[in-house]
Amino acid sequence: SRSLNLAVIPGDGIGQEVVAQGLKVLASVLPQDVKLETKEYDLGAQRWHRTGETLPDAELDSLKNHDAILLGAIGDPSVPSGVLERGLLLKLRFAFDHYVNLRPSKLFPNTATPLAGRPDIDFVVVREGTEGPYTGNGGSLRTGTPAEVATEVSVNTAYGVERVVRDAYERADSRPRKKLTLVHKNNVLVYAGHLWKNIFDKVGQEYPEVSTDYLHVDAATIFFVTQPERFDVIVTDNLFGDILTDLAAAVTGGIGLAASGNINPTGAFPSMFEPVHGSAPDIAGTGKADPTATILSVALLLRHLGFEAEAVRIEEAVSADLAERDGATARTTDQIGDALAVRVAS
Amino acid sequence: SRSLNLAVIPGDGIGQEVVAQGLKVLASVLPQDVKLETKEYDLGAQRWHRTGETLPDAELDSLKNHDAILLGAIGDPSVPSGVLERGLLLKLRFAFDHYVNLRPSKLFPNTATPLAGRPDIDFVVVREGTEGPYTGNGGSLRTGTPAEVATEVSVNTAYGVERVVRDAYERADSRPRKKLTLVHKNNVLVYAGHLWKNIFDKVGQEYPEVSTDYLHVDAATIFFVTQPERFDVIVTDNLFGDILTDLAAAVTGGIGLAASGNINPTGAFPSMFEPVHGSAPDIAGTGKADPTATILSVALLLRHLGFEAEAVRIEEAVSADLAERDGATARTTDQIGDALAVRVAS
Ligand SMILES: CC(C)[C@H](C(=O)O)[C@@H](O)C(=O)O
Ligand SMILES: CC(C)[C@H](C(=O)O)[C@@H](O)C(=O)O
Repeated sequence: SRSLNLAVIPGDGIGQEVVAQGLKVLASVLPQDVKLETKEYDLGAQRWHRTGETLPDAELDSLKNHDAILLGAIGDPSVPSGVLERGLLLKLRFAFDHYVNLRPSKLFPNTATPLAGRPDIDFVVVREGTEGPYTGNGGSLRTGTPAEVATEVSVNTAYGVERVVRDAYERADSRPRKKLTLVHKNNVLVYAGHLWKNIFDKVGQEYPEVSTDYLHVDAATIFFVTQPERFDVIVTDNLFGDILTDLAAAVTGGIGLAASGNINPTGAFPSMFEPVHGSAPDIAGTGKADPTATILSVALLLRHLGFEAEAVRIEEAVSADLAERDGATARTTDQIGDALAVRVAS
Repeated sequence: SRSLNLAVIPGDGIGQEVVAQGLKVLASVLPQDVKLETKEYDLGAQRWHRTGETLPDAELDSLKNHDAILLGAIGDPSVPSGVLERGLLLKLRFAFDHYVNLRPSKLFPNTATPLAGRPDIDFVVVREGTEGPYTGNGGSLRTGTPAEVATEVSVNTAYGVERVVRDAYERADSRPRKKLTLVHKNNVLVYAGHLWKNIFDKVGQEYPEVSTDYLHVDAATIFFVTQPERFDVIVTDNLFGDILTDLAAAVTGGIGLAASGNINPTGAFPSMFEPVHGSAPDIAGTGKADPTATILSVALLLRHLGFEAEAVRIEEAVSADLAERDGATARTTDQIGDALAVRVAS
């Protein structure tokens, strides 16, 4: 009999609430013969306040023994900015070599978008997850004085860029439109930009069916709001991907629906799935959090582990649920989870 | 009698066409007693192809002798990406210490916006212009091989951040809403981010009337499309400012209307005014380029040099012109320039 051994990191703020709904839907959609085991990890702001730890080695080791990780949200105003982000979330992405940060964007029927004319949006951003300005290289000198100098170093390697670019070509090649756009800023960040562009062009020769183009990141934001339907697959650097995927979430109905996967395609380490949104401490505990992004992240998790039919069931359930949502009656976190759990079971 | 001694760099693509309209409107709006002198500098793609030069020292020296610089657009597909941007445009911004890159965003009446509901947008981005990831620090090792490493170093100094933050507080303090938002990514770029945040908080103590907040750059893009009316003045780093101002232009009717000033507030060097848009080689020579962004940049130039009434006349003329524009009949570059020249004269 098959099994699914999941690590769960609810994290901070609304993390706990949305993860509970994700697990509810997961339990409901899984075939009877699959044994689901979950282990919860107490990591995040509370743990840090209690012990000063963000991600101890023992926990990091233990996390390796799971098929995948489901994460809620990390970050709290009571913790200095960067401590949990760098010490926990990014540490996981880097330690488990999550070089494909996968973020699909789709405008579901009947969802609100700030864009007039409801363009037909259905693209996926392949964000590099282990390099760029996220490496933590940098420092500050004469900190806190009028003579302070602070640096941040974006580190980019042919090794790191080629593997994520290749993954993006594979995804583009498997989609009907077969279109791949590289986003960077190679007219200013010439060293990193030229590395990305050269590898993008070189790998492209192996994918003659994929049509390609290049956009500077500033220009890309324009197209995200004026012509988002032009995009199919986008590949980009860690920081540009961070910025673009929040914007993508905003134009496709908001951060309450945006799912993501931090994927290690080699399988050497477990991949990690999480909503794009943060811990939203202002609404934690109110039942106002939309768990849909987490539930869609569970679909990405299932697809990654080979449960394609179950992933599709979740995505179709969300689509149907949204189509029938009555904007006038707000549902609680729990009610949305319940509704989706019922739909995927049936 | 007063005089205005202007350097003009038409540059590439549509640069020549839009600058011609800017100068036409400038000549029309200036009081009779002001003697306008202009000197055109042949810089850009053609010069580079002819001589291999982007900005020779002699030209740089000569440019110092002007009250201000009006620039059209720089960049051409026939020139390797980065050569003209770094060697000419950014060289000017850095050599003349243009640390305030001023980019106002206003949704004029009757202009198309991709946003549903036409929110009331009227904010200004104060983008740092001489530091951050734009310094050209970085390099590449084993270039072109599978072992390549390419770095980009963002350099941030207390000196550089404090002066631009102070400028932004001054601007916020002089506006009715008195609101200033810092945009950075201090949960990941902790060294640069904390430098920015600490200085932002420290200088804020001198401006008790200005209300402040902080947004991560990814979250800021969300608000640009869901709630742009929340912004009054934004201060941010060079790269985030680049990205955000293109998005701001997109939501306020497009890059055809977005003006900018590269300002050295000390007056040690001439400030430079340019549309936010690029050289748009695809429409160069067709008469389709909208010169309004350049004409609004002329208004910023006039304001900077103390011609406040004339600046307002141009801005009111643009507003009135847009209000009466008939979307059905497209006007040429020249026709828009003529119409605005007539309006500001009357
Ligand atoms: C919380 C933060 C470190 C993170 C990031 O910048 O990657 C978040 O914004 C995201 O997009 O997952
Ligand atoms: C052309 C390019 C170097 C420039 C920049 O990145 O600053 C442009 O995008 C701008 O915003 O003025």
